[in-house]
Amino acid sequence: MAVIRIGIVGHGNLGRGVEAAVSKNPDMALAGIFTRRPPHTITPRDAATPVHTMDDLLAHKDAIDVLILCGGSKEDLPRQSPELVASFNIVDSFDTHARIPEHFAAVDAPARASKHAAVISAGWDPGMFSINRVLGEALLPDGATYTFWGDGLSQGHSDAVRKLPGVANAVQYTRPIKDAVERVRSGTRPVLSTREKHQRDCFVVLEPGADADQVREAIVAMPHYFDEYDTSVTFITAEELARDHAAMPHGGFVIRSGNTSDTQSQVIEYSLKLDSNPEFTASVLVAYARAVYRLHAMGHYGAHTVFDVAPGLLSPKSAEALRAELL
Amino acid sequence: MAVIRIGIVGHGNLGRGVEAAVSKNPDMALAGIFTRRPPHTITPRDAATPVHTMDDLLAHKDAIDVLILCGGSKEDLPRQSPELVASFNIVDSFDTHARIPEHFAAVDAPARASKHAAVISAGWDPGMFSINRVLGEALLPDGATYTFWGDGLSQGHSDAVRKLPGVANAVQYTRPIKDAVERVRSGTRPVLSTREKHQRDCFVVLEPGADADQVREAIVAMPHYFDEYDTSVTFITAEELARDHAAMPHGGFVIRSGNTSDTQSQVIEYSLKLDSNPEFTASVLVAYARAVYRLHAMGHYGAHTVFDVAPGLLSPKSAEALRAELL
Repeated sequence: MAVIRIGIVGHGNLGRGVEAAVSKNPDMALAGIFTRRPPHTITPRDAATPVHTMDDLLAHKDAIDVLILCGGSKEDLPRQSPELVASFNIVDSFDTHARIPEHFAAVDAPARASKHAAVISAGWDPGMFSINRVLGEALLPDGATYTFWGDGLSQGHSDAVRKLPGVANAVQYTRPIKDAVERVRSGTRPVLSTREKHQRDCFVVLEPGADADQVREAIVAMPHYFDEYDTSVTFITAEELARDHAAMPHGGFVIRSGNTSDTQSQVIEYSLKLDSNPEFTASVLVAYARAVYRLHAMGHYGAHTVFDVAPGLLSPKSAEALRAELL
Repeated sequence: MAVIRIGIVGHGNLGRGVEAAVSKNPDMALAGIFTRRPPHTITPRDAATPVHTMDDLLAHKDAIDVLILCGGSKEDLPRQSPELVASFNIVDSFDTHARIPEHFAAVDAPARASKHAAVISAGWDPGMFSINRVLGEALLPDGATYTFWGDGLSQGHSDAVRKLPGVANAVQYTRPIKDAVERVRSGTRPVLSTREKHQRDCFVVLEPGADADQVREAIVAMPHYFDEYDTSVTFITAEELARDHAAMPHGGFVIRSGNTSDTQSQVIEYSLKLDSNPEFTASVLVAYARAVYRLHAMGHYGAHTVFDVAPGLLSPKSAEALRAELL
């Protein structure tokens, strides 16, 4: 079995998750971690894993089969993915849904020109949830698709609360509303408002002297983030936040319900219950790194998404073994 | 939009389901139904759909883009799929898991030789469940996969009961055992015996004068089919059978639970709740017919399985539209 040599760019929660995921896949090895921070400040899971500065990345080109980009969608990936795909096969988790077509085009051109393969926007949403939205529509064209998120910690909404004046720290949990989920599961295709689908619960540590009522008002009225939801705000101490809210659980459901004829309705549900959002996202990135390695070997250059990757390419098993064991 | 012209071979429950499914897909049209029965005995859903004998199939070669084979896995498909793929692109739902490698090889050679594309063993198990078994393993390599079936009517087990002396008619329902499902969902990776996972409930109409106790004994002791399960047998009248047991519901779950690190466990679940097993299976076949049409157009000849087909190929939408709308 050829070992696929993985490079990690960025060592936040997602990069650490990729380290863990690579260690679970015997057909993969970690070539190195590349960081903008001083390398000696990074502690890899396995002390033997080399840590380098980003400036040294190109010097390791021949030792890396696929680079997994673990930066953020706002600042890092729009710049890094197009730049690095000129020298490497890459996987990223670009998750700004509205800007995916633009990101795809920005990666596709340099990837084709340099004969590299890329999968962009891998993870679980976008990613596995997206696959299930496409399959749901294709299998039940006369139907409706519902995506619910949670119970889970939302990084973007937590950040939005943290930036408010008077807030020292905060976390925000997104929770699907059970009654809405049950109505969708029943196959009746309900029309649901934003407020009916999810609620948002915030746990906030105030700055000394901050006005709790003012902070609460600023949160619940925040446009796009909170104003369309029922939002609870609970004030806690820094100690409580550290003790009770350090985990990063998440998950959710994609439900497609539809009719195959007038009287026969069918319900498809895909659900995730994740102890660790970054570790699961990282596991998806690593499986797609295997696919990228194979796409490149087959001469399928350019940008791809999860929609373009056959399921078998994610597995370490051969097509023959998959047919015999798992079909 | 090019219209994909579908031919249906065989007009049982599955063939009727394909008729219904094609009518839900505006990019498809029904070229004809082909049957071994006298064509005038067939009543298609849409009276305008032509019905022909199997003997006329080759004469309609130029009017059919993809042939959907709706026969059984025991007698029909092992013979029909290899024979018909020499003249047509085909999709079948061959579901004898143990003989899939053999069937694949038997279809692959004539498909390549005649430059046709085939997808074999499409449906939900094998099919959508298989995809989820492969994805589950690939995303959570340190884990365990569980497949549960039901609540649903099992055709094979119903047939086995019907063949017993003293039985006039019968249906058998497979039911997952709730406690086992909950243990699996909790992520603890329990080891479960066959008896702990499913129970089997039979509803039997006796022949006049048959001995109920003897029939019950013959059922519960039947090797492979019932002896490893807790089986209930309820005797009912022919009228009750016709009134209460005419539907063909089915469904089930594929659950993968695994660890991405020592302390973090993750659970993926795919579930189906089907009013009509044959209509849903037919909907899957029709979506894969679209993929076969495209595989053929791309020059990807030979046999394929659901593992070889990228999700985007199942959708009528373009890759650009999928990225913009569903990723």
